[in-house]
Amino acid sequence: MTDARAQLMPVLDAGGPQLAALLEQTEARLREVAGGHGQALATHAEGTLAAGGKRLRPILVFLCADAKKEELVAAAAAVELLHMATLVHDDVLDGAILRRGRPTVFAEGGRLAATATGDLLFSRAFAELALAGSSEAVHALSVASSALARGELMQRADAWSGDVSPERYLERCRLKTASLFEASCRLGALSGGRPALADSLGRFGERIGVAFQMFDDVLDVAGPTERTGKPRGADLLDGTVTLPLILARELDPQLRGLQVGDRDAAAALCDRIASTGALAEARRRALTHVAEAKALLAGIGVPNTLRISLDLVAESVVERYA
Amino acid sequence: MTDARAQLMPVLDAGGPQLAALLEQTEARLREVAGGHGQALATHAEGTLAAGGKRLRPILVFLCADAKKEELVAAAAAVELLHMATLVHDDVLDGAILRRGRPTVFAEGGRLAATATGDLLFSRAFAELALAGSSEAVHALSVASSALARGELMQRADAWSGDVSPERYLERCRLKTASLFEASCRLGALSGGRPALADSLGRFGERIGVAFQMFDDVLDVAGPTERTGKPRGADLLDGTVTLPLILARELDPQLRGLQVGDRDAAAALCDRIASTGALAEARRRALTHVAEAKALLAGIGVPNTLRISLDLVAESVVERYA
Repeated sequence: MTDARAQLMPVLDAGGPQLAALLEQTEARLREVAGGHGQALATHAEGTLAAGGKRLRPILVFLCADAKKEELVAAAAAVELLHMATLVHDDVLDGAILRRGRPTVFAEGGRLAATATGDLLFSRAFAELALAGSSEAVHALSVASSALARGELMQRADAWSGDVSPERYLERCRLKTASLFEASCRLGALSGGRPALADSLGRFGERIGVAFQMFDDVLDVAGPTERTGKPRGADLLDGTVTLPLILARELDPQLRGLQVGDRDAAAALCDRIASTGALAEARRRALTHVAEAKALLAGIGVPNTLRISLDLVAESVVERYA
Repeated sequence: MTDARAQLMPVLDAGGPQLAALLEQTEARLREVAGGHGQALATHAEGTLAAGGKRLRPILVFLCADAKKEELVAAAAAVELLHMATLVHDDVLDGAILRRGRPTVFAEGGRLAATATGDLLFSRAFAELALAGSSEAVHALSVASSALARGELMQRADAWSGDVSPERYLERCRLKTASLFEASCRLGALSGGRPALADSLGRFGERIGVAFQMFDDVLDVAGPTERTGKPRGADLLDGTVTLPLILARELDPQLRGLQVGDRDAAAALCDRIASTGALAEARRRALTHVAEAKALLAGIGVPNTLRISLDLVAESVVERYA
């Protein structure tokens, strides 16, 4: 089990052998996809797959489903493939050499191979779902996929900007992260016999997705490196303007003009951001989204077992920081 | 009307006002998609759209449909969006500045924006189809989309190779070009009331798609530049090993070790390839695929009007060279 998955232990425990079996089927399906579409994909996709990850999106698919049918495995594989596709493309855009301690497709195959590999993973995501799902399910995935790309475009447009509002930052989190959490919950509900709950569960997914991204951005500044596996301030070095920096600039206008050119400067800026109290405020705002997500669940009267397990997922988003 | 579309005049004439109206609706739908997903897409996608093109794939969708329903417009828009997505990504990979005489998204927005714009167009292709089509239709598009990416990976893997067989070249044409022609015909049949003909019409589309790519590759070597809008030997400069070069190497082994470093060297290599007779042979092989496509149609007993219009499309692939 990876460290990343360890934080989801309470969720996995609550899901029992049924959830474990579905996740194992998802892994098998992902390995099939990586292996079944030509040597070029196999080489690159297997590395991406092996790098693992929490499989948080597939877990949301399974939890939100009532009937734990095998068709759900296709939906779970689809959301994970779409997630992987965006990671591969992000690594091209960021020129990233390592992800989760392994060489990226970009590092191994260059940007040409990585762009095409990402395209192929995108396609396979839709192919998986088309085989098993309804048009409504495919539509949900395509809405998320468009949002992810829009979020990426928005992030690039805002890079190095001295003038990103908290509202714009939240919209970006919604697009580039929460949209796929939302789709995961929605797909689970749609394909798993809970169509009436699809909208509500989708909104829950969106809330925890926003919180997930907000905590990720806090971790980028707060570290420690041993925990996150990357140097502090990696976002700052990329020019990505996240909530801690936005809030810190409000509190300390001198930070507005500051650019960071190397790791040391990034670490120093992280310290200055922390000293303004912006990290605590960003964390507080993220927790608000977690609380909203849990309140939303309580308000729609979902079955108790569902509410308990989704509450555990919502808390796991916070636990990443604990 | 663009030059590119002029070669399809006989097809458009045969299609009459009904085909013209459906193509106009497709243009309107593409403009809506470009305008409706955020400023970043609008800017970049409108340029790609405005660059036009023949809309050959939408035309295939409409021709292969019996009932000319408005739902077909979604399928037509989907295949064109997928085509545009691959063009935008290809331009990133090739570092291409111009396409059809206009600046590429890569040139205007950089590779970051172009990668994300391509991803967004991919997503919208599936979104269009998911709204209107069956799971079978989405599956057909995803099969094509995977094939396009695999073809791209294959082309990159074979770049600068001295040892690409004609069979491997054909497989690449099938993946990177013919798969979307095949899907266009299949989608038209599936969504347009001819499901029983979907496989046969798909095979027709594949044949003319292969021929289309083969002629494209002949044109790259044969020119003239006034006709193709790009310098002769652009593929050779990219390291793309196409049929004329493969055949010329068989006839003149001295060509095997030759690398081209600039436009003059590329033009000189084009002349040497032509002098071996490889262009004539490549053209002959492409015509074989056109003939096979027409024979296939004749053999399955499709309605006369359908056969006539599809024959015209098959011939338009050849006419590009006339």
